[in-house]
Amino acid sequence: MTTVTHFMVLSNGQFNAVYNALSFVFAAMLASFVFFLLIRPRISQKNQAALILTTLVVLIAGYHYLRIFNSWNESFHYAALRGDYIQSGPPFNEAYRYVDWLLTVPLLLAELVLVLRLKWEESRSLIIRLGVASLFMIGLGYPGELAASDSTARLVWGGLSTLFFLYILYVLFVELTRTLGNQPPRVKSLVGAMRWILLVTWLVYPIAYILPRFISNEATALVVRQIGYSLADVLAKPLFGLLAVVIMILKTKEEEGEKALL
Amino acid sequence: MTTVTHFMVLSNGQFNAVYNALSFVFAAMLASFVFFLLIRPRISQKNQAALILTTLVVLIAGYHYLRIFNSWNESFHYAALRGDYIQSGPPFNEAYRYVDWLLTVPLLLAELVLVLRLKWEESRSLIIRLGVASLFMIGLGYPGELAASDSTARLVWGGLSTLFFLYILYVLFVELTRTLGNQPPRVKSLVGAMRWILLVTWLVYPIAYILPRFISNEATALVVRQIGYSLADVLAKPLFGLLAVVIMILKTKEEEGEKALL
Repeated sequence: MTTVTHFMVLSNGQFNAVYNALSFVFAAMLASFVFFLLIRPRISQKNQAALILTTLVVLIAGYHYLRIFNSWNESFHYAALRGDYIQSGPPFNEAYRYVDWLLTVPLLLAELVLVLRLKWEESRSLIIRLGVASLFMIGLGYPGELAASDSTARLVWGGLSTLFFLYILYVLFVELTRTLGNQPPRVKSLVGAMRWILLVTWLVYPIAYILPRFISNEATALVVRQIGYSLADVLAKPLFGLLAVVIMILKTKEEEGEKALL
Repeated sequence: MTTVTHFMVLSNGQFNAVYNALSFVFAAMLASFVFFLLIRPRISQKNQAALILTTLVVLIAGYHYLRIFNSWNESFHYAALRGDYIQSGPPFNEAYRYVDWLLTVPLLLAELVLVLRLKWEESRSLIIRLGVASLFMIGLGYPGELAASDSTARLVWGGLSTLFFLYILYVLFVELTRTLGNQPPRVKSLVGAMRWILLVTWLVYPIAYILPRFISNEATALVVRQIGYSLADVLAKPLFGLLAVVIMILKTKEEEGEKALL
């Protein structure tokens, strides 16, 4: 057990950069949650399954961002005479992010598959394999995150987690591509964009994971990591969901054979 | 790093003027959010896209006003023996406004375009250009806001931000006017009013920005600025949205060829 020898100090600008980023992400989740509810009547019955998943993803993420925001505020206290923030409250709770990912990542992957409206046997197999792999990817990353000071443990857990990450990429970029043959060109390019959003935003996580090796100042590393995670979550959830909704609208239009919304 | 040498003091009247203005704007956002939800069934499917944007704008702004209100209350403490308010809590968070604008201004501009129901290619081009320009306008203004004491930096950032502001005005007052030819006269005059609301309320921001040059008392400048922003937001969001809804109702009536609401 380590002895607490000091309190982390954040400048006013550092504290507020994270504070505002967390609040921004919460607002984005709230707005997209309401948007997905309001757009519901424009989406045909056959496309509702994917829409429900998108709606749940931003609801769950919004809840967690509210908790993360509160944890951030409780963890640091403003030192009025110094004009900066001291981490004298309970430790900032990073675990909220892992809990969030455990719920939302399998849902995001299932959404990407469901929006294609493949044959049910095909969809089921993809959803189960992607879902299970994502649980392992996230679950194995967390012990590494906890082992902040032990670089061997970080490497081992991080490596195991990466194996499942690579398996997911294989399914998304090889297996899923085979099923795209029958999709209209615009759907294909939208699915391509969604896949790349997942890849690019997930790269933020390993970068944040190894960040302490490159930024030795723990306050700076904390701030950079939180802002990186926040931006990644805006892309991977509201924006990803918005692209999925565009696909749903295209498919609804195709079915209805008329000009719907957009 | 600057040393904190004094705490700002607000009179009871100054503190409460801002307190009540912020609370008023929150109430206006909440009420208009519910109004836009309730009016939904009266608006035809083809006009729902613009209505959804209006609804999201006041939702996002309402969230931010709640946060701004809380930040105001946490920042100042009542000094019972003196009967005034001392800013001894965490600094009042002005950044909420910028975060809000980053989300709501592109949505407001998209709403103004969508309510016209132009051809999709035309709408898309306008929405993308207005949206990108507004992000630059807001994003470049913020570093200037932070550089409170450095007037050169304020001038440079403010100037860059103004270039994008002028581009938006060009698109709204020149390009958009060309598309108004086919619109019914009442729609034309309503769109004209919406455009002027944007112009007039946005002028509050540069005025607030250069205000410290003219009001040397920082407490007075803070109070004037907050009240100015609050009034501008009531005009630019609930009132702007209300005019958009009137256009939607006119267009719905036209489609239905019958007397709908109003």
